[in-house]
Amino acid sequence: MPSTTALPLAALENASEFVARHIGIEPEDERRMLSVIGLASRQALIDAVVPANIARGNPMDLPAPLTEAQALAELKAIAGKNQVLKSFIGQGYHGTLTPGVILRNILENPAWYTAYTPYQAEISQGRMEALVNFQTMVTDLTGLAMANASMLDEATSAAEAMTLAARVGKSKSTTFFVADDVLPQTLEVVRTRARPLGITVVTGPVGDAAGAGAFAALLQYPGVNGAVRDLKPVIDAVHAAGGLAIVAADLLALTLITSPGELGADIAVGTTQRFGMPMCNGGPHAAYMACKDEFKRSLPGRIVGVSVDAHGNPAYRLALQTREQHIRREKATSNICTAQVLPAVIASMYAVYHGPEGLKRIARRVASYTAVLASGLKQLGCKLPHESAFDTLEVTTGDHTAAVLAAARAKGFNLRQASRTSVGITLDETTSRDDIHTLWALFANGQLLPSFAQFEQGVATLLPASLERTSAFLTHPVFNAHHSETEMLRYIRSLSDKDLALDRSMIPLGSCTMKLNATSEMIPVTWPEFAGVHPFAPRDQLKGYEELDSLLTGWLCQATGYSGISLQPNAGSQGEYAGLLIIQAWHAARGEAHRTICLIPESAHGTNPASAQMTGLQVVVVKCDAEGNVDLADLKAKCEQHSQNLSCVMITYPSTYGLFDTHVKELCGIVRQHGGRVYVDGANMNALVGVAAPGEFGGDVSHLNLHKTFCIPHGGGGPGVGPVCVVQDLVPYLPAHRSAGLGTEQQIGAVSAAPLGNAGVLPISWMYVRMMGADGLKQATETAILSANYIAARLADHFDIHFSGNNPEVKGGGVAHECILDLRPLKDSSGVTAEDVAKRLIDYGFHAPTLSFPVAGTLMVEPTESEPLKELDRFCEAMIAIRDEIRKVESGTWPREDNPLKAAPHTTEALLKGDWTHPYSREDAAYPLKSLRLQKYWSPVGRVDNVYGDRNLFCSCVPLSAYDH
Amino acid sequence: MPSTTALPLAALENASEFVARHIGIEPEDERRMLSVIGLASRQALIDAVVPANIARGNPMDLPAPLTEAQALAELKAIAGKNQVLKSFIGQGYHGTLTPGVILRNILENPAWYTAYTPYQAEISQGRMEALVNFQTMVTDLTGLAMANASMLDEATSAAEAMTLAARVGKSKSTTFFVADDVLPQTLEVVRTRARPLGITVVTGPVGDAAGAGAFAALLQYPGVNGAVRDLKPVIDAVHAAGGLAIVAADLLALTLITSPGELGADIAVGTTQRFGMPMCNGGPHAAYMACKDEFKRSLPGRIVGVSVDAHGNPAYRLALQTREQHIRREKATSNICTAQVLPAVIASMYAVYHGPEGLKRIARRVASYTAVLASGLKQLGCKLPHESAFDTLEVTTGDHTAAVLAAARAKGFNLRQASRTSVGITLDETTSRDDIHTLWALFANGQLLPSFAQFEQGVATLLPASLERTSAFLTHPVFNAHHSETEMLRYIRSLSDKDLALDRSMIPLGSCTMKLNATSEMIPVTWPEFAGVHPFAPRDQLKGYEELDSLLTGWLCQATGYSGISLQPNAGSQGEYAGLLIIQAWHAARGEAHRTICLIPESAHGTNPASAQMTGLQVVVVKCDAEGNVDLADLKAKCEQHSQNLSCVMITYPSTYGLFDTHVKELCGIVRQHGGRVYVDGANMNALVGVAAPGEFGGDVSHLNLHKTFCIPHGGGGPGVGPVCVVQDLVPYLPAHRSAGLGTEQQIGAVSAAPLGNAGVLPISWMYVRMMGADGLKQATETAILSANYIAARLADHFDIHFSGNNPEVKGGGVAHECILDLRPLKDSSGVTAEDVAKRLIDYGFHAPTLSFPVAGTLMVEPTESEPLKELDRFCEAMIAIRDEIRKVESGTWPREDNPLKAAPHTTEALLKGDWTHPYSREDAAYPLKSLRLQKYWSPVGRVDNVYGDRNLFCSCVPLSAYDH
Repeated sequence: MPSTTALPLAALENASEFVARHIGIEPEDERRMLSVIGLASRQALIDAVVPANIARGNPMDLPAPLTEAQALAELKAIAGKNQVLKSFIGQGYHGTLTPGVILRNILENPAWYTAYTPYQAEISQGRMEALVNFQTMVTDLTGLAMANASMLDEATSAAEAMTLAARVGKSKSTTFFVADDVLPQTLEVVRTRARPLGITVVTGPVGDAAGAGAFAALLQYPGVNGAVRDLKPVIDAVHAAGGLAIVAADLLALTLITSPGELGADIAVGTTQRFGMPMCNGGPHAAYMACKDEFKRSLPGRIVGVSVDAHGNPAYRLALQTREQHIRREKATSNICTAQVLPAVIASMYAVYHGPEGLKRIARRVASYTAVLASGLKQLGCKLPHESAFDTLEVTTGDHTAAVLAAARAKGFNLRQASRTSVGITLDETTSRDDIHTLWALFANGQLLPSFAQFEQGVATLLPASLERTSAFLTHPVFNAHHSETEMLRYIRSLSDKDLALDRSMIPLGSCTMKLNATSEMIPVTWPEFAGVHPFAPRDQLKGYEELDSLLTGWLCQATGYSGISLQPNAGSQGEYAGLLIIQAWHAARGEAHRTICLIPESAHGTNPASAQMTGLQVVVVKCDAEGNVDLADLKAKCEQHSQNLSCVMITYPSTYGLFDTHVKELCGIVRQHGGRVYVDGANMNALVGVAAPGEFGGDVSHLNLHKTFCIPHGGGGPGVGPVCVVQDLVPYLPAHRSAGLGTEQQIGAVSAAPLGNAGVLPISWMYVRMMGADGLKQATETAILSANYIAARLADHFDIHFSGNNPEVKGGGVAHECILDLRPLKDSSGVTAEDVAKRLIDYGFHAPTLSFPVAGTLMVEPTESEPLKELDRFCEAMIAIRDEIRKVESGTWPREDNPLKAAPHTTEALLKGDWTHPYSREDAAYPLKSLRLQKYWSPVGRVDNVYGDRNLFCSCVPLSAYDH
Repeated sequence: MPSTTALPLAALENASEFVARHIGIEPEDERRMLSVIGLASRQALIDAVVPANIARGNPMDLPAPLTEAQALAELKAIAGKNQVLKSFIGQGYHGTLTPGVILRNILENPAWYTAYTPYQAEISQGRMEALVNFQTMVTDLTGLAMANASMLDEATSAAEAMTLAARVGKSKSTTFFVADDVLPQTLEVVRTRARPLGITVVTGPVGDAAGAGAFAALLQYPGVNGAVRDLKPVIDAVHAAGGLAIVAADLLALTLITSPGELGADIAVGTTQRFGMPMCNGGPHAAYMACKDEFKRSLPGRIVGVSVDAHGNPAYRLALQTREQHIRREKATSNICTAQVLPAVIASMYAVYHGPEGLKRIARRVASYTAVLASGLKQLGCKLPHESAFDTLEVTTGDHTAAVLAAARAKGFNLRQASRTSVGITLDETTSRDDIHTLWALFANGQLLPSFAQFEQGVATLLPASLERTSAFLTHPVFNAHHSETEMLRYIRSLSDKDLALDRSMIPLGSCTMKLNATSEMIPVTWPEFAGVHPFAPRDQLKGYEELDSLLTGWLCQATGYSGISLQPNAGSQGEYAGLLIIQAWHAARGEAHRTICLIPESAHGTNPASAQMTGLQVVVVKCDAEGNVDLADLKAKCEQHSQNLSCVMITYPSTYGLFDTHVKELCGIVRQHGGRVYVDGANMNALVGVAAPGEFGGDVSHLNLHKTFCIPHGGGGPGVGPVCVVQDLVPYLPAHRSAGLGTEQQIGAVSAAPLGNAGVLPISWMYVRMMGADGLKQATETAILSANYIAARLADHFDIHFSGNNPEVKGGGVAHECILDLRPLKDSSGVTAEDVAKRLIDYGFHAPTLSFPVAGTLMVEPTESEPLKELDRFCEAMIAIRDEIRKVESGTWPREDNPLKAAPHTTEALLKGDWTHPYSREDAAYPLKSLRLQKYWSPVGRVDNVYGDRNLFCSCVPLSAYDH
């Protein structure tokens, strides 16, 4: 087209520029892929695999797409509607300084944020070392033996501690005691969680803990209003009364005061937010949980442990997985799945960078400033009800409370209303001398302000001398070696270099939807207008977040076909839990609280039954037929059998087998006939957006996980966001948040500590939808389906495609957005297992597909729309080459027990050993494809021994001597 | 210290926190290092190695240090004093959208910005690929055969083109023609450069180019006021008159219009700024230079070429280095050394990401919007003097010119005053429809505004149809494969993974001072208040930059002991050039313009004589004595010989041999006696700050390079900043910038295109000084000296330390901040060369020290203060292990021609070959130290063949087929 010729302006303006950046498949690629599949157009493929009876009635009503720069400008304007005051609110959220080296090289670095949950241990050694550092930090500071690798927030961690105590304690009581100086949002979430389990929550002064006859007591340390109490006598009394003691503790304070473990606590919980993660309107932050050694096999959540690899070297892997929902299902310790790995890594790195002395210095500064503030306030005549304090003072304000709060706001400060007649002031590492002056001025009432001169030589802190911490912590070299920025930078890089994330390779995980997490989506996350907001700031300061919430929920309603959505659940598991609570609340409101039967197909993800159990439901398993679809006859039978008590069915659509069941509408009808509601797990929403809507084809409730379809990065296992989506008649039951003054009586209680959950990452999904528009999103869905079918078609001659649609028009049979490769026949013929193939893929530079889920002995592949054809082909070629390798085993060229698959992954150290005794060559091992000579990922460890690790459980930093052999 | 005890607040506030982050050596490390050296304290070491007679009189008067957060807050307030209006100024600087994936993963990623100049080819393959992409982009777009890997700015590139033309042209003329629509700042710099070389610059309308009888003509394409002329007839006429034609061309326009090469130009120059680098008040941006094939060996600057490695695979390396100043000295093609590599990488990646079609779309949008604007303005009755345009319109405004400019500013728009009676309006890729509406409104004078509706179907651009570009460009696959963000991200990562930068390893380069580039220093660089500023915006909008300039120059005066400093030179070479011009201006003002003899010691860096030549000086070499110091007797003799014509002496202090010459004051006195001035090259300033000041001990002029001592990252070879520092009587001669309305007649002319040079990176040095304070800076200097002496002491038993201070108290003899290891004896005993050791260090995971400078056959090591002791020890252990390896060659265990040193670096591919024929084992090659088994860098290529590359010169993207063998 000549450069002087007129072209339509819209074509030049290219509003949908981002669609082409997000979708990896270019138009000419698409033609090639369709020809392999054997169809003429993308539409023909969609027609062939998506049942006509579920196709959506209308296209999504979304605003026209914007370019990246336009969307950033629009969101910046929305962000600007938040008022970012300096927070002295405390209540579990504190100002913090994210060290620049951590901000840029972890929080803003795709090598960290695009990584997946470390199920494939060998390619996850870097982030698992960071998580072991996290666990060590938590056990050291809490003085307890065992910690997991993060919880969702302090409130849910406390609720999980309650159920842990219920599981492991010896008491028969169903009462749970919560001290009245526990954070109010924690109490609220504990109440939500307790109710369906038949646990009665009682509250009272700390001193009443033992008298309640509870199976466990939850205490806050220091208390929400600042008092730092010696909890040992209370804990001893609780123990004497047969209960367990749970202490919610502030990690920064623990650098100075006696740890919960030393006070006798059985379990400790809390947040690590103030270790470098901005407040972000409430999340994402890593919470922690630690417990005594005897409870370790009951601890919920993920735990990273140390094992050995095939060469006897130390190697990390996820420990004790048999506790978890994907194995134990409704008998799991918890439904928690996604946690807060990226924030946990940041908190651990904050401890690595500051070290024990640096943390103590920060804590002492906070405690000293608090004492300075207190001293000055007393000089000004203020009354402070508590003698002790770490970072928080309660100041009696009587009738002036509202006026003081307003005067503070006028100065740009948010204080907390501690009671009707007092305010709370919480300091943190960002507090300056100027801030203290301003605070004094608020209470000066015309008096001369105190001077810092009197404090220069220091003030005694208000920490009780009897609680002085005497035990050492963070003594491992990792916390004492990386204190210069150069050293820290290299440590961070050395860890990330060990790992495979999306910045180097496809991660073709079935059901996990590892797509592009675009930079333009990530940029707003660290804008101070979003990151600097306290979740309990006055609501009128949060107009930007309100608009973000309202727009995003509106768009997600369009995408799902539902009428109402809450973004409060901060993980898919929490959204699922909330969804089931909503169904139960609806039944209860109709006087049918007895409806507690939950039907779940045998193919379901383990989180489904785990969540059902937590909601007090009884799980009844429904069979699947030979094609992997729900067996309608069995469903019908089960519905009839439980008709009077049927609560709901939980299905995944398309199914976990990666298929569009043509009978889904019929299925929904049957359940509804029997008074039940239909729960559609949104795990596979990436096969639906723009094509079909669960809220239209029969779902009543769904949860999404925004780190799947809506681009929030997986972060190595979190954060996610788990919106719960409901049809019209269930909207009144969406989660409330009464601590924040939100919600009606009809709504279910809070399920997360913060009203908007992991609010800080919502800009990611907002940007995604805003830049894609309705057509772009639909194209993404269709391309994801195309790519999965392309892989199925290319591999169909080499592997059995399990549970394909058996569509003769479509090579590979037709699948949804993922396909299952059945490797069981190969095990018989060669001894090679699906795990061997997964590990061998590492040698080819790939993260393995999902291993043995939903069907043991298979690999489930989900390419997503973001992968370029070149990468799909690289994967197919690797799989085909591996099939050829297996053939060599089948034919006896290579022995069953000594071949490149069994020995995979190969480390350079193993490959370079002087004596090479394998029947295959070093080059066969390292470079089975020529392309690997140009670019190669080297596994940092050999195959990790899982059994050894669980038998010799060790979950803290590895002594350096372990590497001396 | 009990947690309840009072501690001084200042200790808790830890204002100098950053000092400990920046300096890698902890107090306990220091004790260990001193014991190895054999001294009791750091002070004792300084006393032993720094001559007492140069010690500075007073400590530096700098503000007390701030913490990172405090310094960022203070700088943010300063940045806020810049007013960032939307720029329609053009004149070589344009709004641009940096793609997020490039912003975060290159500009803000230490793997890219901390890299060194790619002298060590094997560990620089990634960035050299990016630079070859840059060269290909430039040659493709300009239609010329050969391009270098970036110039400093368009103006200096034009000046270099002038001297290139003078060197290679056949004309005897000394006249250089500059068309009157060339950018004014280009003309100004060309005039500065021309004068000392005896070149007369004449200007006139483009059509007069051939009539001037010039040896070359410089033409702008499109012209500064927007006209797009067919330059072919002019170029033909210039050629016919015996001259060469230089075209300064806009790369974005070249996607649509006939290239300079196709028009017959001999040389093309320009900026690549609008390819993704923000305006940053004028820099850093990569300029380009391209020329016909026949001039390639005269092209200034660095050129990346393709060669082969030891295994016959394609490999990049710097080509044709024999042209450069470090080899050719005063006969070099230019003094250019540091260029603008990081901005060049960004520009090349912008082209990779958009591809030819994307660039054309952007260019067509700009051209179409310009046509839309023009059409609307005409409808409103405006007069536009030019018929043609790409992105710039001149609008006749008559008496209303000032009013129009003011009205535009009131709307937040900066226009350009094109003449006394007209304004210029330049559009760019950030221009929106709203902007065009606002521009129309400025000229509407109450009339109804034009509507976009009439233009929706497009407008013909104002580009002359005859200039339609018909030739293809960017056809190589690299520009056509990475258009999705996933693909782009992986490409960027795959390149950076090939390279060793400071984020993985020490870079112990003598004289290059590769220290920490802290994140907190980098963060302000991309703040919009700094990055969004046009260098020719009205001065009253630049208050923030003015304050930054004034504070930083004040602090640098403190550090150097000088009275006045200009930050305008945008590289050390330019600062040096400016310094010599200042000396000559001073001589000329005293009627002594005949003083043109410049004494330079034989140990000097090649840039010194190269700069002297450019200033019209005659270089006279002065000998050095056996200790590496200037031979005072020879100096005296040369001074006497040239007493009447002596301009100056150029010394480096401490010397390039890494020694503090105790006679430096005497030396300065001798030169001064003979009417000369003393130029002190600031390359080794890191050994002086806080300890001694060149402005105090005898220097008259110095240049610094802020990417050495003052923390601007090297960026793989730029950007730098080269402040020129002078004593009081030379202050009136510091560079002016008349295009920006700055400066007096006495001042020398502009040496850079922008008044503040590479202004955008100045926040880095500002932050560094602000966070370190006087004590911190002094401690850094002393620690750098300590670390160098520690290395000398540890290696003294294994290698000859060349030119040590021979101080018997100090093990190793006492050196300044770097030490030279003499490997020449080993070549005799083993055949192992310094280069072999450098390459073998790659196998040990190190970038080599400086190789064969200042003495052939040696390695010069500069550790800097930022390296942790652990890393210094790792380096020493590697060097000692290499010495042991050499011993095995000496003893005949390994043959002279086949040993791990000769075969280094070893790639995994070479190590895994089936047939291993070397007399050493694979493990000896790969893991000579046990620590390498835990962490190992693998060279991506074997040793690169430099000779092959220069014999078979190829400087564009490698065809994919080259990898098929």
